[in-house]
Amino acid sequence: MAHYNYKNLSANLENNGVLSLSLNRPRKMNAFNEELFHELKVCFEQISWDPDVRCVVFSGNGRAFCAGIDLTFLASNTTIEETDIGRKSLILTKFVRALQNSVSAIADCNKPVICVIHGACIGVGIEVVAATDIRYCTSDATFSVREGRMGLAADVGGLQRLPKIVGNDSKIRELAFTARDFRGKEAENLGLVSQVFDDQAGAMAAAMATAQEIAALSPVAMVATKKTLNYSREHSVEEGLDYIATLNGALLQSEDVPIAVAASQTKTKPTFSKL
Amino acid sequence: MAHYNYKNLSANLENNGVLSLSLNRPRKMNAFNEELFHELKVCFEQISWDPDVRCVVFSGNGRAFCAGIDLTFLASNTTIEETDIGRKSLILTKFVRALQNSVSAIADCNKPVICVIHGACIGVGIEVVAATDIRYCTSDATFSVREGRMGLAADVGGLQRLPKIVGNDSKIRELAFTARDFRGKEAENLGLVSQVFDDQAGAMAAAMATAQEIAALSPVAMVATKKTLNYSREHSVEEGLDYIATLNGALLQSEDVPIAVAASQTKTKPTFSKL
Amino acid sequence: MAHYNYKNLSANLENNGVLSLSLNRPRKMNAFNEELFHELKVCFEQISWDPDVRCVVFSGNGRAFCAGIDLTFLASNTTIEETDIGRKSLILTKFVRALQNSVSAIADCNKPVICVIHGACIGVGIEVVAATDIRYCTSDATFSVREGRMGLAADVGGLQRLPKIVGNDSKIRELAFTARDFRGKEAENLGLVSQVFDDQAGAMAAAMATAQEIAALSPVAMVATKKTLNYSREHSVEEGLDYIATLNGALLQSEDVPIAVAASQTKTKPTFSKL
Amino acid sequence: MAHYNYKNLSANLENNGVLSLSLNRPRKMNAFNEELFHELKVCFEQISWDPDVRCVVFSGNGRAFCAGIDLTFLASNTTIEETDIGRKSLILTKFVRALQNSVSAIADCNKPVICVIHGACIGVGIEVVAATDIRYCTSDATFSVREGRMGLAADVGGLQRLPKIVGNDSKIRELAFTARDFRGKEAENLGLVSQVFDDQAGAMAAAMATAQEIAALSPVAMVATKKTLNYSREHSVEEGLDYIATLNGALLQSEDVPIAVAASQTKTKPTFSKL
Amino acid sequence: MAHYNYKNLSANLENNGVLSLSLNRPRKMNAFNEELFHELKVCFEQISWDPDVRCVVFSGNGRAFCAGIDLTFLASNTTIEETDIGRKSLILTKFVRALQNSVSAIADCNKPVICVIHGACIGVGIEVVAATDIRYCTSDATFSVREGRMGLAADVGGLQRLPKIVGNDSKIRELAFTARDFRGKEAENLGLVSQVFDDQAGAMAAAMATAQEIAALSPVAMVATKKTLNYSREHSVEEGLDYIATLNGALLQSEDVPIAVAASQTKTKPTFSKL
Amino acid sequence: MAHYNYKNLSANLENNGVLSLSLNRPRKMNAFNEELFHELKVCFEQISWDPDVRCVVFSGNGRAFCAGIDLTFLASNTTIEETDIGRKSLILTKFVRALQNSVSAIADCNKPVICVIHGACIGVGIEVVAATDIRYCTSDATFSVREGRMGLAADVGGLQRLPKIVGNDSKIRELAFTARDFRGKEAENLGLVSQVFDDQAGAMAAAMATAQEIAALSPVAMVATKKTLNYSREHSVEEGLDYIATLNGALLQSEDVPIAVAASQTKTKPTFSKL
Repeated sequence: MAHYNYKNLSANLENNGVLSLSLNRPRKMNAFNEELFHELKVCFEQISWDPDVRCVVFSGNGRAFCAGIDLTFLASNTTIEETDIGRKSLILTKFVRALQNSVSAIADCNKPVICVIHGACIGVGIEVVAATDIRYCTSDATFSVREGRMGLAADVGGLQRLPKIVGNDSKIRELAFTARDFRGKEAENLGLVSQVFDDQAGAMAAAMATAQEIAALSPVAMVATKKTLNYSREHSVEEGLDYIATLNGALLQSEDVPIAVAASQTKTKPTFSKL
Repeated sequence: MAHYNYKNLSANLENNGVLSLSLNRPRKMNAFNEELFHELKVCFEQISWDPDVRCVVFSGNGRAFCAGIDLTFLASNTTIEETDIGRKSLILTKFVRALQNSVSAIADCNKPVICVIHGACIGVGIEVVAATDIRYCTSDATFSVREGRMGLAADVGGLQRLPKIVGNDSKIRELAFTARDFRGKEAENLGLVSQVFDDQAGAMAAAMATAQEIAALSPVAMVATKKTLNYSREHSVEEGLDYIATLNGALLQSEDVPIAVAASQTKTKPTFSKL
Repeated sequence: MAHYNYKNLSANLENNGVLSLSLNRPRKMNAFNEELFHELKVCFEQISWDPDVRCVVFSGNGRAFCAGIDLTFLASNTTIEETDIGRKSLILTKFVRALQNSVSAIADCNKPVICVIHGACIGVGIEVVAATDIRYCTSDATFSVREGRMGLAADVGGLQRLPKIVGNDSKIRELAFTARDFRGKEAENLGLVSQVFDDQAGAMAAAMATAQEIAALSPVAMVATKKTLNYSREHSVEEGLDYIATLNGALLQSEDVPIAVAASQTKTKPTFSKL
Repeated sequence: MAHYNYKNLSANLENNGVLSLSLNRPRKMNAFNEELFHELKVCFEQISWDPDVRCVVFSGNGRAFCAGIDLTFLASNTTIEETDIGRKSLILTKFVRALQNSVSAIADCNKPVICVIHGACIGVGIEVVAATDIRYCTSDATFSVREGRMGLAADVGGLQRLPKIVGNDSKIRELAFTARDFRGKEAENLGLVSQVFDDQAGAMAAAMATAQEIAALSPVAMVATKKTLNYSREHSVEEGLDYIATLNGALLQSEDVPIAVAASQTKTKPTFSKL
Repeated sequence: MAHYNYKNLSANLENNGVLSLSLNRPRKMNAFNEELFHELKVCFEQISWDPDVRCVVFSGNGRAFCAGIDLTFLASNTTIEETDIGRKSLILTKFVRALQNSVSAIADCNKPVICVIHGACIGVGIEVVAATDIRYCTSDATFSVREGRMGLAADVGGLQRLPKIVGNDSKIRELAFTARDFRGKEAENLGLVSQVFDDQAGAMAAAMATAQEIAALSPVAMVATKKTLNYSREHSVEEGLDYIATLNGALLQSEDVPIAVAASQTKTKPTFSKL
Repeated sequence: MAHYNYKNLSANLENNGVLSLSLNRPRKMNAFNEELFHELKVCFEQISWDPDVRCVVFSGNGRAFCAGIDLTFLASNTTIEETDIGRKSLILTKFVRALQNSVSAIADCNKPVICVIHGACIGVGIEVVAATDIRYCTSDATFSVREGRMGLAADVGGLQRLPKIVGNDSKIRELAFTARDFRGKEAENLGLVSQVFDDQAGAMAAAMATAQEIAALSPVAMVATKKTLNYSREHSVEEGLDYIATLNGALLQSEDVPIAVAASQTKTKPTFSKL
């Protein structure tokens, strides 16, 4: 089994293929600094191709999921010594692209990612959350697209992903423009989270149970489902149909199909080999 | 009037222009075999240009809407004699494309299609449902994106259409990854169905009433509305505006506009000729 | 301060940067004629670049938000003297494009627009509403995609925007096909409005409060947020990320960022200069 | 071997996998009537999946490649009995779509199609030519986007495909707007044809030689190349890269790769099995 | 007949429907200032819907087609008093968009535009040229994507349109990166112009002859052809086919089709009424 | 100055900002193995943000530009131990994506890249060439889209980029389907290269001269031009216009604009600072 040794992330891989991964800067309420952004990217790229991992449960250590970006880090990157406005603009764009790539590593990861949110989930925090697949939260979770209050537009994926994953555009715009807080129940009504739980323990238990269900299914089917959902979100129905038909040209030849069909007919539990 | 003679579909066209169409393999719980896929395509292409049909109510005979794909049919098409992996991949892609085309015939049909779901609605069943326009179900309807349990990713439109028509991406991903069952009420909360009814009779009655309302309106307006909704789902707002403006260049010259306007002013019920 | 002198629109710009704008043809229930379409476009273009306006609250004077298109105006433009069908078609397309451009001026306006709907909101009315950012309504507000009853497909943006901003495609299609009325509560469940209020006074008060919150934030951040939300709705996540990164290359150099950060650290209320 | 029995097409399939296919209405200069459009579609769909065909050489019998659409056929379809302009518009659109689908069957055919043009190549003729892959012509071939002279815009693919396959937009627009004739040499300079020959025999011989070269290569590689070129023409570089990477996931597992590599290393001629 | 009274443009509309339009700031070598940008937009919008104009020949008065942007105008708009970088960036973007809209008015104009270039054609000049449909030039015409030498990237359409209309991307990039001059012959080889003439008189005569040919054809067919070419350049073949099929639903009902067909059969010259 | 230390690439950075970079596996005719693919990516990412590099001249050491992929490397990656077809397909797709990313690093590099080709330029070689900006070659350069002979479709960008950068689709398809060789002159006629030279020395001298010209211009303008050309190739004209207007919001504030304008007015040579 591969090791997951990160300074700002803690990981625990169970035998059933479920990886528990947590943001681990509890004293900073898991605020994102350069190192955490970097580790996030490296870690999800590792997970994407680790045959031992079949599903991820992603949460935050300490009293909050994430308090946002580390202001010291932001300050040091926006007050750079370059003085020409044009050159500085190119550097800042590069800087933002790097942060975006870290967050996109979650969405691009081959394995389903279930996110458990408790406490504050602010700014970069909610943008990270939007890049996961399934979201559970506690009723006292507090979300905010806080960037509007920091004098800038959210720029690591929130304004792109949130409207594509919720069902009330009027409210999502209100939240983005006012940068106000909202709680778990409102997040569920929006369609941002699947379910709200009384406390973190309950949310974690449910996430682990869902993850275990997913981990027991064909890992080939899971990768194909995630890739297809991601592709189809950005393309027309017709293009999405072409994509899955092309992909399934190979994947229908996997041994997992006859294994699953046989198990279904004998009402037994199938076993699928690692990816 | 045209005839609708199919082996696996039963049809009844009423004078008001409403066509009741049902999946009719009740002993197999309307599981999809090659013939049913084929008839589905031919039938919806016939409906698309049949001037006597103004709206379709689409349901399933027997105790379920649809139990999914017929496993015998699936098996015979995935265990083909070709041995080269590359050639087999091209053949499988062609096979999947053919099934997709059958399901897309519903979405591409010029007439509004109201679907009534009761009992099991599994695998291909839910993918077919996603290609209709309006969905009513019974409270005991049981949906499942079951393909994940069969070792494959759903490939006849579910992963493309479901996320575009519901408002909770977190839950739709959970449903696609876990392949778990969900009931009518959850389907309504998701935005998958418009309304839930106690039993099939109630759902059918409501669907027929809605269909009758639609059938009484201008058939030109209904075709234009469906074409525009379909086009706009895949394009930017600006492109969608260009599309309807081009289409309405001709359609605003239809006699249906002055007929409708006159009826509106005299508060009488307008009569529109067939398409 | 700029003046907002329009015949069919009334405007009141407060010191806090909130512009109250109302449709002002109360005796015609704010039905849209040529002049109103024209003024709508000019007015929202003026707002877009008026440094004194930071947020708009948009409503209707009299007993309804909007009764739809003025039928006299529609009639005079669809019964034109040109007799050749081809030439007439080009003219009608041009006519529709012009109306669409008026409605799109709201969506393209740089400033957040909060819409307050009471009473009837029919046809063009609901299409205009779909072009605003945040929507509040009264419980007795009555919406209808009425065009289907007029023998035509809605063509000034409703069929493009409504499905992109609500979370229940089954219901939106039902509403577009049947052209039936629906009330405030159903609009909220659909995701069309953020909140429903007992009466117009309550809805206006809430809208003004939200507008004031928005107007107190950095105007640079608000413009960037609206531009990015609009762009991202039409593009893939990756393209949207590229867009905001390019935009923020310049905007992160705005003085608003250090002002906001400093205020946040000192827990004081920041003051941002005009756009 | 499958049979190619068509009334308006003549076909000859050689042992090397090259299918010679000709438009065969010589007395009408191969003008397109309903039957020819229909047969074109059926024939190219047959070719697409016929394992015995590896490459097609497509030409015209008699003294011209194609004189355009059969005016009797056009007249009978544009002077239909429906009188309502709106309904007639929907019928005409359906009619045009059907003709387009016939021509697109060439572009969608899995096998490379080499077209040999001599004599007149007018209207529909040049639109058909634009749907093939490789084009050779005689120096006296006479092309014309003639539709402009018939009071209409070319509508079976010419205005879509010609600008995507030639390198001089200024000239292609001149040709489309003036509907003037141009000869083989100008077609070569435009990039419309690869090579110009003195006479039909020379062009046919060269086409057969090229076809034979193609037919000797891996049929899996040829299908993949055509699919990828078609896909990539309509998509961004990045999307095209994703497409071929997905496709090659399966196709690199074909036995053709080691066969080809081994032949390359031993400098022998490889033999690839049928598709 | 409508009047074309502009300060910086001279116009002459002949009875045959050909409008000669010239840039008319000869003492400034037709450099673009604010007024010329504005007039360009208004004039081409006027042309677009003027029934008397069927084709435009567009050239430059004096010794050059266009020397580029007026540096005084550029300077006054880039050295604005706003000091905040973020706000200034929004203003500059707005400024560039306005200039772009002027140039795009040529491309969006319903009527074919033939451009005749002589002498210098620099910076904005070549960007304007790229927005026309057909291009003729003199052998001593001197083109340059000069913006690279002014410290900026060309921003009124050159970098978008030039690569889409020429056939040698290697050379177009060389020209954009080096900002070097190139002459008429090289422009023809690139595919930028259709034909090169010895002098302006010859080029104008040829342009007028081509324009006359175009003006004699059905104006409905010409508008449809231009709209379709513009649309198809930006869309997939399939989308372009859908567009022209929708458009032709109406336009095939034009009287111009039977008029043209009858003339073709009787070998007489058809007469088409104004748009 | 940064160092460019690579095992398979040799680099020489001159004071004028021109970086000479060569493929340096001359004994293998610069065939691509894993290490070279990796170094190519790292090196072009380094160049992209190295302020000392303003333009790149990219060539091959030894007697050829590049003989294609190293067959040992290909063999070791296609004969992997995984036996399940589905799993193997996912691994192969990942492998192809990695190679594609290496080649795309050239296209994504901020600095203009001039490629000089001599001798063989086969398979991966021509795909790499297609990712550069400007191409010069010797008359005896021999190109081939050789993959077709290896039993596979070219998959590191050739089938995507070549058709977008040349002007004769008929010929490019012939070359891709036959996998035949073609020489410098034909490459020039295709629009693949800008210019053909008698020998490598001449081509290199011309490339260095062009590079020097480019390096003397504003580096901000050069980056903006390349980014805009890349973006616009994949997007509609309208989207490209929006992109450059957004980018120039910041870049027009660069000091390079007044420096360039002043130099132009004083007819002196401007000096621009590093990026």
